[in-house]
Amino acid sequence: MPDTAPCVPAFTALLFSLSGCLVDFGARTEPEAGPTPGALQALKQLHHQGVPCAWLDELKEELALPLAAPLPQWVKAVGATDGNPWPAPDACWQALMHLNVSKLDGCVLVSGNPRLLQSGLNAGLWTVGLAACGSLCGLSASEWALLESRERDLLRGKATLHLFALGVHSVIDHLEELGTCLADIALRRYKGEKP
Amino acid sequence: MPDTAPCVPAFTALLFSLSGCLVDFGARTEPEAGPTPGALQALKQLHHQGVPCAWLDELKEELALPLAAPLPQWVKAVGATDGNPWPAPDACWQALMHLNVSKLDGCVLVSGNPRLLQSGLNAGLWTVGLAACGSLCGLSASEWALLESRERDLLRGKATLHLFALGVHSVIDHLEELGTCLADIALRRYKGEKP
Repeated sequence: MPDTAPCVPAFTALLFSLSGCLVDFGARTEPEAGPTPGALQALKQLHHQGVPCAWLDELKEELALPLAAPLPQWVKAVGATDGNPWPAPDACWQALMHLNVSKLDGCVLVSGNPRLLQSGLNAGLWTVGLAACGSLCGLSASEWALLESRERDLLRGKATLHLFALGVHSVIDHLEELGTCLADIALRRYKGEKP
Repeated sequence: MPDTAPCVPAFTALLFSLSGCLVDFGARTEPEAGPTPGALQALKQLHHQGVPCAWLDELKEELALPLAAPLPQWVKAVGATDGNPWPAPDACWQALMHLNVSKLDGCVLVSGNPRLLQSGLNAGLWTVGLAACGSLCGLSASEWALLESRERDLLRGKATLHLFALGVHSVIDHLEELGTCLADIALRRYKGEKP
């Protein structure tokens, strides 16, 4: 993740979904599955930059917390909330309040789940869609690796189109591309674009 | 309030502050004080257009509810909340969740209180500042009417500059101008402006 120039405002907070984003989509069924490729590195860099992060998920706490166990402790957990369910904006606003953010400006949601991404759009967040590792493909990293490259391109292409049709601001394959993607969003913010 | 053209998206929800906005600033001390000039008419037109409305206030419920008694029942009451206090965005997001709004887009806050307006800006709302009837002037409608016009202009001018310096999107003297102001914001939204 390149350092942003001093005139570019820093990000206020990042929200992630858990399964199919920070944690391998296969983690529900494969006990050895853990953080997705790039997840820990992305969190480390955000922490270094002082950007608070949280994950949110619709799973009940007793299911979600074990999945989140390999993540750093400082990443806040926001389980199922009492507000209106996705795609209503409630869960995203509640996660931001959990993080005590001072403003919506500069808040970003990263997810492969179309309903959560819609919730983020409804809440006024910048949204980054994950095409390859999210629920639209629904494959674990190991299953993904076993696909033929033609199959992979087809699935990725379909998911990418689906996510852009929702109105998300950026689509990447997986979290290894998050740094570049955030640098692009920082530039768009600097140019005055709003989510 | 002129009818908006069909291509202009409707407003999603309006939030108001109570004292110094919907209700006369003098209502705390003058029992005969009631809704501010234009308040009931503005609410009636918003109700007619199907726009949900709520008031929010930092006062405890037992103080705020009697002040709100002259307002229509359908206007939702959002008293002091358990989130971070103004100017944090929490109270505005919680009010929107009380109204079950589906999206931030098209939500507007109307207030004369600089800390609440800052909360609205932090929450990503369109904000309308009230110069003459709000807490920056701190006068009841009857006190305001007794001022010499030079004094009035001076107070109004100072309050207007203060509100624009905060970053609010529009400043009006009192709620009688709200219809024109919302028509202007509708036009700005139609042209692609975001709050």
